[in-house]
Amino acid sequence: MTSPSVDTTVVRIARSARKAALTLQSSPVGSINNALAIMANLLVSEKAAIHAANRKDLAAAATKNLSSAMVDRLTISDKTIASMVRGLLEVAALSSPVGQEYERRVRPNGLEIYKLRVPIGVVGIIYESRPNVTVDAAAICLKSGNAVILRGGSEALHSNLALVKLFRSALIKAGLPADAIGAIPTTDRAAIERLLKLSDYIDLIIPRGGENLIRMVTETSVIPVIKHYKGVCHVYVSAKADMGKAIPIAVNAKVQRPGVCNAMETLLLDIALPLKSRMKIVNALLENGVMLIGDPETRKLSPAVRRATVEDWKAEYLGLRLAVRTVKGVAGAIDHINEFGSHHTDTIVTESAPEAERFLREVDSSSVMVNASTRFSDGGEYGLGCEIGISTDKLHARGPMGVDDLTTYKWIVKGNGQVRQ
Amino acid sequence: MTSPSVDTTVVRIARSARKAALTLQSSPVGSINNALAIMANLLVSEKAAIHAANRKDLAAAATKNLSSAMVDRLTISDKTIASMVRGLLEVAALSSPVGQEYERRVRPNGLEIYKLRVPIGVVGIIYESRPNVTVDAAAICLKSGNAVILRGGSEALHSNLALVKLFRSALIKAGLPADAIGAIPTTDRAAIERLLKLSDYIDLIIPRGGENLIRMVTETSVIPVIKHYKGVCHVYVSAKADMGKAIPIAVNAKVQRPGVCNAMETLLLDIALPLKSRMKIVNALLENGVMLIGDPETRKLSPAVRRATVEDWKAEYLGLRLAVRTVKGVAGAIDHINEFGSHHTDTIVTESAPEAERFLREVDSSSVMVNASTRFSDGGEYGLGCEIGISTDKLHARGPMGVDDLTTYKWIVKGNGQVRQ
Repeated sequence: MTSPSVDTTVVRIARSARKAALTLQSSPVGSINNALAIMANLLVSEKAAIHAANRKDLAAAATKNLSSAMVDRLTISDKTIASMVRGLLEVAALSSPVGQEYERRVRPNGLEIYKLRVPIGVVGIIYESRPNVTVDAAAICLKSGNAVILRGGSEALHSNLALVKLFRSALIKAGLPADAIGAIPTTDRAAIERLLKLSDYIDLIIPRGGENLIRMVTETSVIPVIKHYKGVCHVYVSAKADMGKAIPIAVNAKVQRPGVCNAMETLLLDIALPLKSRMKIVNALLENGVMLIGDPETRKLSPAVRRATVEDWKAEYLGLRLAVRTVKGVAGAIDHINEFGSHHTDTIVTESAPEAERFLREVDSSSVMVNASTRFSDGGEYGLGCEIGISTDKLHARGPMGVDDLTTYKWIVKGNGQVRQ
Repeated sequence: MTSPSVDTTVVRIARSARKAALTLQSSPVGSINNALAIMANLLVSEKAAIHAANRKDLAAAATKNLSSAMVDRLTISDKTIASMVRGLLEVAALSSPVGQEYERRVRPNGLEIYKLRVPIGVVGIIYESRPNVTVDAAAICLKSGNAVILRGGSEALHSNLALVKLFRSALIKAGLPADAIGAIPTTDRAAIERLLKLSDYIDLIIPRGGENLIRMVTETSVIPVIKHYKGVCHVYVSAKADMGKAIPIAVNAKVQRPGVCNAMETLLLDIALPLKSRMKIVNALLENGVMLIGDPETRKLSPAVRRATVEDWKAEYLGLRLAVRTVKGVAGAIDHINEFGSHHTDTIVTESAPEAERFLREVDSSSVMVNASTRFSDGGEYGLGCEIGISTDKLHARGPMGVDDLTTYKWIVKGNGQVRQ
């Protein structure tokens, strides 16, 4: 149950955001770009205020025994600020799809009908820890003409509120409504629950964080949610693979940045791949410090491979640990991925075009690759210019989501007095 | 709480549909079209079985005091069968977007990246009464390569199961998996609740029916839902309107078929419209048997106009009853519609291009029209060839939804051994 004051605050923020969204949808993209540039300047000129707010969060963190990795993510250094500034200017330089007219048709009765690309309206972002998400996410939402409501992690509350305060003043300086960016000024979890019921004011919820947060949001929300629960990404090495590609791809997919959602979590080896090739790939991973957990076939390749259970096929380790399974050809790989994967990103390594085509067609994931590392599954790498999140849902947007994915359309119908018979 | 047997049945149907969907996504569109044509033939050759099943439902209805309108909707006449046959053949003749490749780009590292249009997977349709929806909805889902799970109204259970049985045999005859069409064979409401939690097997839920059903589905589902709660459609008549268009449009939007979601529910009259014009439009509606409920300004136009409350601005009457309000120009109309409307379909009648442009831009609805009746908001009228439903949500699809809207995309990435730096 929500306390009356939290309730009032959340409803007020959501209602103001809806009002701001209606103004924003008619605002020129020039004003929006201007607000982003002003915010970039404010981040530099007002950095003392940001550091002061961040120190409050860091002091609170020190009393809570957070891991050094979490403290690191929480810290706003001058380098963090420089990266936020760069992000803002990159987003400002992107083109906006808003206003595009498409799928035009003239009906036999003379009606002219087309779709007009428009902002979604109000986007709620619920995320954990990293304060730079506050600036990045708000910038992408604004760029596509949306108002945004931010609810960051409780550890970063002071930092987030300081950043939002600056961004709101940038909006005012650019002649736009400050309420186009709202932040929930409380760590009270009831505020999230309340927010997720306000479908009259909020059009889309994007949760970013651990699986528990995302499940809670999905189960509570009556507003559409775009999300990915986790990234259980696969690399399948076919007997027809070029091992000169397979080994670097497998090592890169696991080792280059193991803590992220597009890192490989399960390696699938074709039973028809020569024993020597399978040993080479397993040893390359072991040499890179990866702990391997495998099926009986894989355990024959090295005594270092531990025994896997069915839980390992579903696991997102997010570290230097990897499940390895031997499968019967591309059909076996596809069955394994469609049964145990998370529909995120999966790669086949093969020199056979028919095998690659089958894998691309039958693997039911948001990104399916041939002869490339799963680590490429990313808005920047796909050329979207930025990324608001990754979707493993099938509705609206799938895979990395950029500015265009935060827009929708309305049907425009122009007549001359037509009535229906 | 679900009983074990209902639970087992629903999970079995959903799991079989998922499996069928994986087969279907690789099946040629020729086989799908063939299944639709076979089903059209079976509807005619097996019509005795359909009528027999329908008689069971009608007999049960007779004991329940259903309204004659509901009995009418429930009845499968030879005319109903002919209309289903026509629908099947029309859907078979549509082109399929599945397999289209678009947004292709080659990145500086040589990766070739594009989007491939694919079926969504498994679609659940939850609907009330009309058995013809069973055939129409299944046909549209199949055409776009999706498996479908149908849960129709309990009054139509026997009719629906008979139609699904035929459709499954048509699938087998076309060499496709019968489980691509599943029906929940029970009227137990717990079955719906169970279905709405099966996000591992079902990708999209489309509820069609009354507002209560749709709210229940939205609140219970952890699967994405596309829906419209209701259609509170507006016609705004500007002082710059041609009354020779305004009167026929207002009468058509209300009277031509008052029980449907794209019929007008509120008429907005510009205060600057001459009194005589306003009286003309009000009298035309009264002469067509429409009961009017209005604000004080409107009540001056005729003693027949009853007093409106704020509830009337939100009401979906679905009958020959209409709310009428006087507003200050296009700005007043836009404010009213964005506050009280249901984001379905709204029309301005005006000869002023700038006024029309402002209305089209600022009204936040799925269809926005100039000088045309709201009754045109329909998949067939928009040239989609068919309609699986209307969305007032902003995600994925907005307004009338056709075959294309039951597809999504996956990202295809083709490399030559690239790894991420």
